[in-house]
Amino acid sequence: MQIDGFSFSAVKAGVRYPNRLDIGLIYSDKPCVIAGVYTTNLVKAAPVVIDEQRIKSGEAQAILVNSGCANACTGEIGMEIALATSKLLSDRLAIDDTQVQLSSTGVIGEQLNIKAFEDNIEELVTNLSPGNFHSVAEAIMTTDTVPKTSEVTVTIGSKEVKIMGMAKGAGMIMPNMATMLSFVVTDAQIGPSTLKTVLARTTEKTFNRITVDGDTSTNDMVLVMANGTAGNDLLSEGTGEDLQMFENALQHLLKDLALQIVSDGEGANKCITISVGGAKTDEDAEQLARTVATSSLVKTAFFGEDANWGRILAAMGRSGVRFNPDTVDLAFDKVKIMQNGMGVGSEVEDAAAKVLKERDITVKIDLQEGSGSAEVYTCDFSIDYVKINSDYRS
Amino acid sequence: MQIDGFSFSAVKAGVRYPNRLDIGLIYSDKPCVIAGVYTTNLVKAAPVVIDEQRIKSGEAQAILVNSGCANACTGEIGMEIALATSKLLSDRLAIDDTQVQLSSTGVIGEQLNIKAFEDNIEELVTNLSPGNFHSVAEAIMTTDTVPKTSEVTVTIGSKEVKIMGMAKGAGMIMPNMATMLSFVVTDAQIGPSTLKTVLARTTEKTFNRITVDGDTSTNDMVLVMANGTAGNDLLSEGTGEDLQMFENALQHLLKDLALQIVSDGEGANKCITISVGGAKTDEDAEQLARTVATSSLVKTAFFGEDANWGRILAAMGRSGVRFNPDTVDLAFDKVKIMQNGMGVGSEVEDAAAKVLKERDITVKIDLQEGSGSAEVYTCDFSIDYVKINSDYRS
Repeated sequence: MQIDGFSFSAVKAGVRYPNRLDIGLIYSDKPCVIAGVYTTNLVKAAPVVIDEQRIKSGEAQAILVNSGCANACTGEIGMEIALATSKLLSDRLAIDDTQVQLSSTGVIGEQLNIKAFEDNIEELVTNLSPGNFHSVAEAIMTTDTVPKTSEVTVTIGSKEVKIMGMAKGAGMIMPNMATMLSFVVTDAQIGPSTLKTVLARTTEKTFNRITVDGDTSTNDMVLVMANGTAGNDLLSEGTGEDLQMFENALQHLLKDLALQIVSDGEGANKCITISVGGAKTDEDAEQLARTVATSSLVKTAFFGEDANWGRILAAMGRSGVRFNPDTVDLAFDKVKIMQNGMGVGSEVEDAAAKVLKERDITVKIDLQEGSGSAEVYTCDFSIDYVKINSDYRS
Repeated sequence: MQIDGFSFSAVKAGVRYPNRLDIGLIYSDKPCVIAGVYTTNLVKAAPVVIDEQRIKSGEAQAILVNSGCANACTGEIGMEIALATSKLLSDRLAIDDTQVQLSSTGVIGEQLNIKAFEDNIEELVTNLSPGNFHSVAEAIMTTDTVPKTSEVTVTIGSKEVKIMGMAKGAGMIMPNMATMLSFVVTDAQIGPSTLKTVLARTTEKTFNRITVDGDTSTNDMVLVMANGTAGNDLLSEGTGEDLQMFENALQHLLKDLALQIVSDGEGANKCITISVGGAKTDEDAEQLARTVATSSLVKTAFFGEDANWGRILAAMGRSGVRFNPDTVDLAFDKVKIMQNGMGVGSEVEDAAAKVLKERDITVKIDLQEGSGSAEVYTCDFSIDYVKINSDYRS
């Protein structure tokens, strides 16, 4: 898929490692409506600090992103370098500096290699092409093993609206914020405050429901640029069904990207949906699901393909949610292994063990207390996770 | 060390595995003052439910403990079996059933093997001896690699008071409750409400400050039995310096046991003290230290002996505590690697890398904002942790 007005480029600039795509550019022929969600971490990387100021205008024309260095915990110098990269790009593109959103990912605490930008900005801009979307998805990878992209089209009125997105994830993924990078472009015509609201709602149901290791990064962000070339009637909070169609399509795309992130979690072998129902409230269900999804003991049991429902109930018990353990049912996919807080028996464990050999598994928990429900997505916790994270910088 | 009036015994009963000590008994010739701290997990094992009722009297004469099976998530049957083990023992000892505290550790969700108790209670009681303390410390081990004991004496008035303690730990260790088993006996003469208060205070500064994997078990408890044979003047909240001496001695012993648990954390190679100072309040310091101590990314970096201060600052940033990242200093032992929120330079990283090769490491964090401080103790997160926990039941 290509979207009129957007072009993409990536170069091998040697930001930290030689011979890999590590600087990417997303460019719109004209200023776009833009909305963003940024890390909730108190320690914010330099590009995040800059972007949060700039996005207040609701408008942007370019996203400049690099891997290899996070430009976080780098002080005044890091801020100056970030601004210098922005200036290099805006001068070359002849656009206002404030139209550039910056994004960095990689090692924390090292200064960004400005020379990599100086030497490559010309090639980066020259290479811009509507077909280069996937090369930018490659350039933002760190410990990701595959680039992550998704696309969707939706008919709004008589117009076909396109949405294309990319993401990087792997480690440092945790709920409660869009804790990874994702860039989305669309030709929808939509107002800035509406786009902001829709992005907040859809992020909450997608990127904020995944967890890999419970850590939140200093650099995470989701950006959506909309250039309006689809020619649909302007979407706003008052446009009812049309807006709902767009929101559903965006949510579908973000959920697809979120699940790709979980599946490619550092060292992950399994993609696990923790589905809690029968809770007193949706909030209770979400808190229970999150606690189970982040438990190291639960996640190592999944790695071991062990139907260890006791660890799941124990994790629920420390979640802070009040519930009656004696009415909890639990199933792996369709195999019910716990009924009313007790194990069903060893024969069922054998059937459950078979389910656990699959790559995609749903843990279905029913509290039998109410109608609250929630889903959270996680991965297993493997030996490779530890290997990847213990020698990441070497 | 031996303490007059206390005797100990352990047998190889085959609760779950053959040929290992797995039922232990701590017995006092006469009823003792007892205090306990139990798991805060909403899902409580059968013995915990029973003990919390019985301890209200402030008195007990025996602790019956088994490994191999947690007797958690076992419903009414589990409760009946726990009561039956208690009855077997109290009948044989000719004491009141309510004088028995029960404790179990091991796999969740399986019924306790009552026959192992029936067949071995006679030998267990017959073998009671003041010198068998260490055999009980062995009987409570699960994934522990070494038994954990500690002893201390303190002179109160003209009397020598002895305290002996044992603990098991390894996995499922997390702050916010005494999340492991520990049994302590002393000949101090002390009132029940005073012992309860002192235990709560000392647990808060010791067992509640350690973390291995952030999970809290269904079975955790700390019990202290005091038989008064030292003949010291009765310790109570009004006895000032004498009580302080006892409390200091107990805290010293519990901290020793707590650090032994961290050192023997599942797969642990390092014992790491996270020491936060210069915070606005002690509470802020504790929350920051806990967040760093439980971060998978920080703990895997320690396993990799990587001086990755950026991950530490990133963990602090998501702790929920408000602080200024630009005034944070950080040192590994005496090697300052971060000053005012920025790295000091690559030469210092080499010196820090040497520190990280040690087994005992202190991470010293100074916020330079106030006088609040706290210490939390943790271990590294290793490949062996995953191995141990992914095939624990097999």
